[in-house]
Amino acid sequence: MAFAMDETALQAFLEAEFPQVRQDFRVERVTAEGVVVRLCVAERHLRPGGTVSGPNIFALADVAVYLATLARIGPAALTVTTSASIDFMRKPAAGTDLIGEARLLKLGRVLVVGDVLIRSEGSDAVIARASVTYSIPPAGPATG
Amino acid sequence: MAFAMDETALQAFLEAEFPQVRQDFRVERVTAEGVVVRLCVAERHLRPGGTVSGPNIFALADVAVYLATLARIGPAALTVTTSASIDFMRKPAAGTDLIGEARLLKLGRVLVVGDVLIRSEGSDAVIARASVTYSIPPAGPATG
Amino acid sequence: MAFAMDETALQAFLEAEFPQVRQDFRVERVTAEGVVVRLCVAERHLRPGGTVSGPNIFALADVAVYLATLARIGPAALTVTTSASIDFMRKPAAGTDLIGEARLLKLGRVLVVGDVLIRSEGSDAVIARASVTYSIPPAGPATG
Amino acid sequence: MAFAMDETALQAFLEAEFPQVRQDFRVERVTAEGVVVRLCVAERHLRPGGTVSGPNIFALADVAVYLATLARIGPAALTVTTSASIDFMRKPAAGTDLIGEARLLKLGRVLVVGDVLIRSEGSDAVIARASVTYSIPPAGPATG
Repeated sequence: MAFAMDETALQAFLEAEFPQVRQDFRVERVTAEGVVVRLCVAERHLRPGGTVSGPNIFALADVAVYLATLARIGPAALTVTTSASIDFMRKPAAGTDLIGEARLLKLGRVLVVGDVLIRSEGSDAVIARASVTYSIPPAGPATG
Repeated sequence: MAFAMDETALQAFLEAEFPQVRQDFRVERVTAEGVVVRLCVAERHLRPGGTVSGPNIFALADVAVYLATLARIGPAALTVTTSASIDFMRKPAAGTDLIGEARLLKLGRVLVVGDVLIRSEGSDAVIARASVTYSIPPAGPATG
Repeated sequence: MAFAMDETALQAFLEAEFPQVRQDFRVERVTAEGVVVRLCVAERHLRPGGTVSGPNIFALADVAVYLATLARIGPAALTVTTSASIDFMRKPAAGTDLIGEARLLKLGRVLVVGDVLIRSEGSDAVIARASVTYSIPPAGPATG
Repeated sequence: MAFAMDETALQAFLEAEFPQVRQDFRVERVTAEGVVVRLCVAERHLRPGGTVSGPNIFALADVAVYLATLARIGPAALTVTTSASIDFMRKPAAGTDLIGEARLLKLGRVLVVGDVLIRSEGSDAVIARASVTYSIPPAGPATG
């Protein structure tokens, strides 16, 4: 299988297009099924008690499926999330990066569907699972 | 119907317990069905193009159902999100606050379910809808 | 607002196109927001204990958003469900029809999103909530 | 890892407790992660065009996570589905059984979460994915 973008290209794209989150995420690996992405956990991601907040876990799932899509179709900044579902199952380990493992289940002309398992680095226990749907706009503005 | 916490109490609780997001959210109104919460949109919430990012919209939905729950049961910081689903339907208007209107559909002993409609302030069009489930831990740690 | 199909047209379409479920569903009302659909509960819908099974509640949600879509755009048999999320919140009353109230939140060129509240007839308590996304195929086969 | 119920015990439980669906599902295999369940496709499961309907695909996902739970905790008829999300990605092959592969991601005291990949028998392409949450009632009635 050929990839349209590798780790370096994905990381460069992310930092160029989404400067707000450039320090948050690191592309670890492009895989046959998708990508592995790290959330570099810092103080700003935490809730009381020292665990990563739900919205930051959601952000990791969202970006992981996005990057898995780009790895296959190449840079497409207009691609937009149309829906997502997420289950939070365990508390993340305190002060530990999160690792999101995304796999693409469908890569259609219009819709892309992937799911993600999220773990604390070094642990097998799944913290959260998510499925995310992106829509790939044809020509013109992204209005679904 | 009696409320356990009003707007002022909810806002004070939010700011005390979640200082990281104290500038993000404002409790607008406690209603018979739930609450209305504002996301005070700032530069840090935006994606390229000037629209609020998906994770920030998710955060608004999440906090709105949380606050709707507290309005009924009183302060319960241990309450944890167990699952959520969200549909992103339109682009938010640029540079405009988002208003989330949450209603509780179930307030059980263990699980609370609410849904949320999110709009740009001053617009009728729904930007996103979400449903969120919280679990209320019994005594002891929050492990679902 | 003009409707493309009224109650009678929707019911006739359902019975012609989906003969397997013709005895299951009855279009009660087309509303400004969507439709109200009845699941005519019979022995075959029940689980032990006499309550309607989850898949039959899902079916009601699915058909309700479908019919709400048709009420606006007219007959489009190719329209396909692309995703759904559902929360089951209470046991349905035994031996009682279920009433699903669907509202359309987005009617786009490609994607339609609606949500549904489901109650036992004569009760205010919400049994289940669901959100359902349909995709409207352009010309050609429905492959999303 | 020890299982509380094997294929034969699960199949017998299903047929005894859910006689309405006894001809629909067959437990293929208990695995380290969960179970593999077959939907024995018959005329009654089909939509126009000869493909399995969405609610029947949902039913397969629902029962697969249920059976995966029972394989671990033993017979617990009161266990109830509290939420589910499903993505329909491809049309099932006509006239072909569906195979659902469920894995448990969390087996808590109160909540069980699993996800399911569904394929047409003999095909690698994923027709649908679902995640399903069950709640395990303590003593007393199952009210979440």
